[in-house]
Amino acid sequence: MSRIVIALGGNALGNTASEQLELVRETAKPIVDLIAEGNQVVIAHGNGPQVGMINLGMSTAAAAGAIKADMPFPECGAMSQGYIGYHLQNAIGNELRTRAIHKEVVTVVTQVLVDENDSAFQHPTKPVGAFYDKETAEKISREKGYTMVEDAGRGYRQVVPSPKPIDVIEKNAVEALIAAGQVVVTVGGGGIPVVRRDGALYGTPAVIDKDFASEKLAELLDADELIILTAVEKVAINYNKPDVQWLSRLTPEDAEKYSAQGQFAPGSMLPKVQAAVMFARSKKGRKAIITSLHKALDAISGKTGTVVEM
Amino acid sequence: MSRIVIALGGNALGNTASEQLELVRETAKPIVDLIAEGNQVVIAHGNGPQVGMINLGMSTAAAAGAIKADMPFPECGAMSQGYIGYHLQNAIGNELRTRAIHKEVVTVVTQVLVDENDSAFQHPTKPVGAFYDKETAEKISREKGYTMVEDAGRGYRQVVPSPKPIDVIEKNAVEALIAAGQVVVTVGGGGIPVVRRDGALYGTPAVIDKDFASEKLAELLDADELIILTAVEKVAINYNKPDVQWLSRLTPEDAEKYSAQGQFAPGSMLPKVQAAVMFARSKKGRKAIITSLHKALDAISGKTGTVVEM
Repeated sequence: MSRIVIALGGNALGNTASEQLELVRETAKPIVDLIAEGNQVVIAHGNGPQVGMINLGMSTAAAAGAIKADMPFPECGAMSQGYIGYHLQNAIGNELRTRAIHKEVVTVVTQVLVDENDSAFQHPTKPVGAFYDKETAEKISREKGYTMVEDAGRGYRQVVPSPKPIDVIEKNAVEALIAAGQVVVTVGGGGIPVVRRDGALYGTPAVIDKDFASEKLAELLDADELIILTAVEKVAINYNKPDVQWLSRLTPEDAEKYSAQGQFAPGSMLPKVQAAVMFARSKKGRKAIITSLHKALDAISGKTGTVVEM
Repeated sequence: MSRIVIALGGNALGNTASEQLELVRETAKPIVDLIAEGNQVVIAHGNGPQVGMINLGMSTAAAAGAIKADMPFPECGAMSQGYIGYHLQNAIGNELRTRAIHKEVVTVVTQVLVDENDSAFQHPTKPVGAFYDKETAEKISREKGYTMVEDAGRGYRQVVPSPKPIDVIEKNAVEALIAAGQVVVTVGGGGIPVVRRDGALYGTPAVIDKDFASEKLAELLDADELIILTAVEKVAINYNKPDVQWLSRLTPEDAEKYSAQGQFAPGSMLPKVQAAVMFARSKKGRKAIITSLHKALDAISGKTGTVVEM
């Protein structure tokens, strides 16, 4: 029996509530396969499309005067945790009941600590929410202090920093739930980013990479394995080229060599490989696996996937 | 030391994120007063204004074509749990740290079971979300099967049923967290309403009264006290009349007599009194208190509030 943190991509969850409700049913099956084998499973997930939709929806309605104010980014993240967490706990719970496995699933609203002095705060890079014309963007920037930049020729958007996760505030709650036999959904969207000032925690507009947040969670929970799910079964070098090479094992050293060669796409495979390396190096015996959702069980038993370990 | 379930009103949380962030700081203090006295505290809360804003925001944005689809009502409830829960756990956590009380606060995304055969499903009564003109309302009714009714001369709105809570699906998770010394926020907005079909749970568009959901939670957790917070310090008969009489104690029998006289406003004080009576009658020694947030500590020690017990 292993303790496993699964990092699930937000892109795999669809763009509307009805799409997501369909997709989580399929997502639940391979996750319950892992639980059925006796593993302790904790689920972290991304929220890119979902938090974007929520932020855009609320700001559109606020601009139209339908609601009083738009929704700041940390609050949108909290909303996405409720929205995605509910669907995941419902679907995984239903799948467990179908198989007569007497375990329960619960979502914990989760704050993740970041450092106000993280250099990412000087260089916000992550565009979020609605597109605005230049004039409106300047007004928003003046009134709310948001950093607004021109994005992809489609207009101006808020950009937020992507700082590194330092701690998971609710980690003891997650641990208590695991100890009680619960399957836990946590650090949704990389967690609600908070900074510490004079001992108190304050939400801050930022996006924590969900792979790094999942890695931090896996370390804090002393997990045996971190499974990072993606669209492909294995990590490749020379991806999309005739001499593509799919990797079954990847040492931290090779991962760094390939990263330096630009083998892994930034914002996509690169953070996954980086998070996997970080976890593999954090303690002897820890193993990270990068694979697709439907190959997760095979990957755990060593049949496929890319294993990153020291 | 008592185990206490607090039912907090959604109206006390403001209408925007910045309002709520201010208000939860004030809300946190009397709650932490109770924790500082050594009580085990579980917090349930309403979400009327918040879920309305979310539902309206997302449907406005969907109608404007800014996002692909609007958000069904159970999902809006889940979003409101994340949004309100995050603010509560952040503010209560900060207040605990200020007082050097080493306890943690966590929000559990919570589903509450209702009966598909509850007669409320035949008579949806609770208006939610946006106002539409007659033609649009008829179109929505045809396409989505929503019940739409004319509301207060302002247009047509979706109405949803308000069925009785039967079970709190995540009660064991809440219990495990309490046992681990955590302060838990749960059944937000009365919980995400789910029905059971062939053993599986399905979200259903409905609103569970948060006072009844809090009462059910308090029973399931075998709480000693249920504190229902409201705008006034005590329950009154002949409210707003010259011969107003503020009640320090209220027996279930008197409560029923006064209810039959129409002493308590439906949708406001009436469900609070009904929930209090239900809890007081559920087991010998259980006590319900109706009071205001800032009188909670005094009420617990018997100095004010309306105590409902057998």
